[in-house]
Amino acid sequence: MAFRLTILGTSSALPTSDRYPTAHVLNVHERLYLIDCGEGTQMQMRRYRIRFGRINHIFISHLHGDHFFGLYPLLSTFNLMGRKTPMHVYAPAPSEELITRHLKDFDINLAYELVVHTLSGKTLRPVLDDKRVEVFSFPLKHRVKSYGFLFREKTPDRNIIRDKIAEFNLTIAEIARLKKGEDVNREGGEVIMAVEVTLKPRKPVSYAFCSDTGWFPKLATYVRGVDLLYHEATFSDESEALAARTGHSTARHAATVALDAGAGRLILGHFSARYKSPAILEEEARQVFPAAEAAIEGATYDIG
Amino acid sequence: MAFRLTILGTSSALPTSDRYPTAHVLNVHERLYLIDCGEGTQMQMRRYRIRFGRINHIFISHLHGDHFFGLYPLLSTFNLMGRKTPMHVYAPAPSEELITRHLKDFDINLAYELVVHTLSGKTLRPVLDDKRVEVFSFPLKHRVKSYGFLFREKTPDRNIIRDKIAEFNLTIAEIARLKKGEDVNREGGEVIMAVEVTLKPRKPVSYAFCSDTGWFPKLATYVRGVDLLYHEATFSDESEALAARTGHSTARHAATVALDAGAGRLILGHFSARYKSPAILEEEARQVFPAAEAAIEGATYDIG
Repeated sequence: MAFRLTILGTSSALPTSDRYPTAHVLNVHERLYLIDCGEGTQMQMRRYRIRFGRINHIFISHLHGDHFFGLYPLLSTFNLMGRKTPMHVYAPAPSEELITRHLKDFDINLAYELVVHTLSGKTLRPVLDDKRVEVFSFPLKHRVKSYGFLFREKTPDRNIIRDKIAEFNLTIAEIARLKKGEDVNREGGEVIMAVEVTLKPRKPVSYAFCSDTGWFPKLATYVRGVDLLYHEATFSDESEALAARTGHSTARHAATVALDAGAGRLILGHFSARYKSPAILEEEARQVFPAAEAAIEGATYDIG
Repeated sequence: MAFRLTILGTSSALPTSDRYPTAHVLNVHERLYLIDCGEGTQMQMRRYRIRFGRINHIFISHLHGDHFFGLYPLLSTFNLMGRKTPMHVYAPAPSEELITRHLKDFDINLAYELVVHTLSGKTLRPVLDDKRVEVFSFPLKHRVKSYGFLFREKTPDRNIIRDKIAEFNLTIAEIARLKKGEDVNREGGEVIMAVEVTLKPRKPVSYAFCSDTGWFPKLATYVRGVDLLYHEATFSDESEALAARTGHSTARHAATVALDAGAGRLILGHFSARYKSPAILEEEARQVFPAAEAAIEGATYDIG
């Protein structure tokens, strides 16, 4: 059962010759959740063999081009590929208006339903609840309205003890109920207890995405105990004033959030073009939170 | 003195893992003219070492995403790079309105002047005349208003005969005038005739860009005698009906235009994703016009 993240872009607003703008793909049991969609996201998806048809949900943190410019062409590509399944986009206002107008201006008639969910709220707020995952948005502090996202895996099924299948002559239907933790009442009064024939499921895992934001103390509370935290780290310590002015974080800020939240692991990204290598950012973050690393484009991170 | 074309994208509307959407860069004596700007154009520009600062003119054939989606992020990148020089965009209506609205919606305040020139007209029409080149637009036949572009090099300077410099003791200013073909009248009545001390300049060269279009007989007259013709070739013969329906050309159509125009050489592009290799398109074009070849991304073509 997969719960893993692929990073498609690590640049901030100005892409470089080896960094694309922000886009993440979270694979939750082979359903893909796309998070932010900078220019060239669809090219990166092809490069790293992300399956277009497995995406039904796109999360956009804020309406700055390096997080959004790839959305219009991607929606068009889904259309040209013959998509019929509805696509859900979660984004701040006025995304729905912008997208609708753009499709009209560019002569794009979608053959699939596009559902735009407008993000809002001043605290952690549920935005999606499906079979695999619950997703929450939470407010960030940037120059425009910006949201982070928390993905929590649904509690996995309990694991059936193999020997018990024969011992109790369990049917497929019974196994399914037992894995959900439900006891089975058979005709004649026999009760098969889930705790007897199954083992505790593994702990559900979680991922949080902190897009463009300045540091603020409450942020850590939104992502408390997350297994993998992605946090933007546009600048190093020496540009802390610039970070504050532009609504961005330093690597040290990102690490402080990870530390305060008790995160398992921290991935840094959204690097300013001024850093040819993100080594300095990784180093400064590790001084605060040792399990920090600079994101690598195309790399996949197993969570939990 | 350069007059050469670099192809940054060869795909049609649906990019593939090895084809980017349309964008061409014409280098005229080290000034660059960008023609169409599909998604990822700025990434391709970096990959193929196109110098951003040498572009002052961008030509957009029509308002379909695969020719336009890269423009918004490119304008933003110019801004982030500190551009101060005006940028001229030549595009069909309502480009100016779309761009202005987009910049506002995405919180982009350009520090340079953006001048949008609206294309129009039912025949060959001058759109730019600078020191190096004259550019004309001409109408194509597509599902939306679409324009081709003809780039004609200004007549190059005559070549000074080296020995004559000493013989007549020519000054720098005199040489400059003679190279323009102007005679020099010296004090005391001496006349130095340009034809005596210079050689005829080489023939000026030309490039034409025929973006998305169905075939029509008049098209060849707009590009009469062009040295290098680029023409879209979305489909092969077997999809001629589809080409007609979608306002596109087959490779054979493109070759027919090249033949009728008396072009020197033909480059095909805008290949449908259905063709893993454009070999079949090249082959069909060559049956009509032997000097035809499928464009290669990143390749540079010397003209003249």
